[in-house]
Amino acid sequence: MTSSSSFSRRKDAIDLHRMLRGKIEIESRISPEMIFEEGKRILDLIYTPNVSYVAAEISNNKELAYDYTSKWNNVAIVCDGSRVLGLGNIGPEGAIPVIEGKSVLFKSLGGINAYPLCISIQDKEHIIALVKAIEPIFGAVNVEDIESPKVLEIVDRLQKELSIPVFHDDQHGTAVIALAALINSLKLVVKDLKNTKVLVAGAGSAGYGIFKILDAAGCREIIVADSHGAIYEGRDEESNRNNLYKSEIARRTNPEKISGNLVEAIRGADILIGVSGKGGIVTKQMVQSMSKDAIVFALSNPEPEIYPSDALTAGARIVATGRSDFANQVNNAVVFPSVLRALLDLRAKTLTEDILVGIANAIASLVDAAHLKENYIVPKVNDPRLLPVVSSTIKNSIGKQVAEA
Amino acid sequence: MTSSSSFSRRKDAIDLHRMLRGKIEIESRISPEMIFEEGKRILDLIYTPNVSYVAAEISNNKELAYDYTSKWNNVAIVCDGSRVLGLGNIGPEGAIPVIEGKSVLFKSLGGINAYPLCISIQDKEHIIALVKAIEPIFGAVNVEDIESPKVLEIVDRLQKELSIPVFHDDQHGTAVIALAALINSLKLVVKDLKNTKVLVAGAGSAGYGIFKILDAAGCREIIVADSHGAIYEGRDEESNRNNLYKSEIARRTNPEKISGNLVEAIRGADILIGVSGKGGIVTKQMVQSMSKDAIVFALSNPEPEIYPSDALTAGARIVATGRSDFANQVNNAVVFPSVLRALLDLRAKTLTEDILVGIANAIASLVDAAHLKENYIVPKVNDPRLLPVVSSTIKNSIGKQVAEA
Repeated sequence: MTSSSSFSRRKDAIDLHRMLRGKIEIESRISPEMIFEEGKRILDLIYTPNVSYVAAEISNNKELAYDYTSKWNNVAIVCDGSRVLGLGNIGPEGAIPVIEGKSVLFKSLGGINAYPLCISIQDKEHIIALVKAIEPIFGAVNVEDIESPKVLEIVDRLQKELSIPVFHDDQHGTAVIALAALINSLKLVVKDLKNTKVLVAGAGSAGYGIFKILDAAGCREIIVADSHGAIYEGRDEESNRNNLYKSEIARRTNPEKISGNLVEAIRGADILIGVSGKGGIVTKQMVQSMSKDAIVFALSNPEPEIYPSDALTAGARIVATGRSDFANQVNNAVVFPSVLRALLDLRAKTLTEDILVGIANAIASLVDAAHLKENYIVPKVNDPRLLPVVSSTIKNSIGKQVAEA
Repeated sequence: MTSSSSFSRRKDAIDLHRMLRGKIEIESRISPEMIFEEGKRILDLIYTPNVSYVAAEISNNKELAYDYTSKWNNVAIVCDGSRVLGLGNIGPEGAIPVIEGKSVLFKSLGGINAYPLCISIQDKEHIIALVKAIEPIFGAVNVEDIESPKVLEIVDRLQKELSIPVFHDDQHGTAVIALAALINSLKLVVKDLKNTKVLVAGAGSAGYGIFKILDAAGCREIIVADSHGAIYEGRDEESNRNNLYKSEIARRTNPEKISGNLVEAIRGADILIGVSGKGGIVTKQMVQSMSKDAIVFALSNPEPEIYPSDALTAGARIVATGRSDFANQVNNAVVFPSVLRALLDLRAKTLTEDILVGIANAIASLVDAAHLKENYIVPKVNDPRLLPVVSSTIKNSIGKQVAEA
């Protein structure tokens, strides 16, 4: 990306947003003609007095909110603006265009009403209380762009305390699409996930989610690095850096206790998955130190850890980013519309790691052998097969769990 | 309304809601064709990576959220379900169809995106904290169907503590449309508001709002009654019933300290405005005891204090209800879409009582002398002249305030 094209895309983005003044809107599903033509007598059904019959029915049986209102199809995108793309803690106002963009994809790809709830409180307990308070009108919650590890605790708590499903796209969505891309990449380089060495650069929501899904998928050589370098058991015990989630990573990865920064940790890795939120932190030299047929996913947005041209020049065989303007977009936009669509339709509450692995395999399978190649490892975000395949995977997994229980 | 037609409308209302499963939806303002056609290159502008330029701009200047997002046109309808229509505290799920209906009217009549935030917390401080937390994505707040006096305190606090306008439709909207209807009714019976005796039955949000606007409009003989009867200074001093708002009513109305129940308070009144939330509490005998050319507004929903046919039989000259299925719908739906449209467009923060009186006069003026009659005292909710006339009234009033300051 040259600086002139970068300037132009900046201008294009701002001009488009100024022209639109909002990428989403709330629409009535009943036309004004229907509502206000006296012969139709619709107004007194949708509003006072006769809507009160519907209100009374629901108050006697809250489940009817799924049948008589939009609840079944409403998702709250909850964001406190504390970690927006690679921009950091820019606050809720700055997050609005990002979350509205997400809402556009929810509707365009999943048919879902996604409410962009950008909130000005950043305290964990207050956020949990707020989400619990708004539960009545939603069928599911998508937690988004909240800083880690706070957000991991919020998601754990909400999954326990709400009666509707809670999806954490930065964690679950990113993990699913990264694994799907990896499954297909490994077919091309003819390696087995169980015997590959993976470096995950970044130990926030995405890094934690990727560690969990790789572990569930059978990967045995995982190293996760944060800004202090490779995580290993014992590293953080005497510092203030420790948290529950990094402790879990430390316990279950890097058994050889490899220490040091990215330069050291990347040496000999088959796979790099960059979810650091920091553009440009991976150099060509670092890619050169990886194994043969290296796979480089530089997924941070907007600036990837290394640009594709540099990674390829340095010898990587397969390269992906999170962006729609390069080949191989490993972006959770492939995942969240179909997963939330399925969760809403199935009234499913919890996605286990095994179900997430199943979804990744299902998404990977959409790229068939005849089409699979170095610059086509994941389906497009608008692949119409995503919805049915993700839905049937979740449905079958839940059925299997029920049968086994 | 016979019981058979009541049954039928109940069935119609439930069938319609079951068929629609949501009266509103969130729509993308950009078509899928635009987003996903590669030649168009829209996806990377509305979402990652280039949306980050827009996010960064806003984070540097939060005011730009009004220019680059839907904030300028978003209203939060905040409802805890503690006082829904005449149904009482039915909870947030039961409130959803009512609030969705309101959202339909906001869009159809005012072009506004109204988010139906039905919340499960009913504590005053928690509600205030929640509304403050969601302020970033909204251009205004409409507080709705929360019980009084809690809601009056919430509204007062939010008006002070938020930087966006806070409208309380049950209070402000009802007051405006009631005064507009009264202004036109008084023309028909040739009485002067300053010399009429008004009984307001109900001292909740609507009763308080009507007292305030009648007072500002120059009415000198107001009695407000609650479920304990007429309010007068001293009545509640030794009970636990007292609250800030009823104290204000007691201080500024009923100087003769008329006491007793509705039967006693209504005697000789020129005007009854029923906003009690209790259907059927006014009898024919009570209407018969009013002055000649009595004006009866039985505004409670869904059941009015007295049905129009009974009030007319008992000698009332002009009768109105809050319902769309009778003549003279004195419903705040005439008010809230245009007032919120104007507040959003003008970025106006506060509506004083004088401005509310001005809006009532403006709305009343839309029924010209040639058309004004006993069964046509207020414009229809979808009168296209409402938006411009309300907007110019607010604009001029604010301009006048600024000039005087």
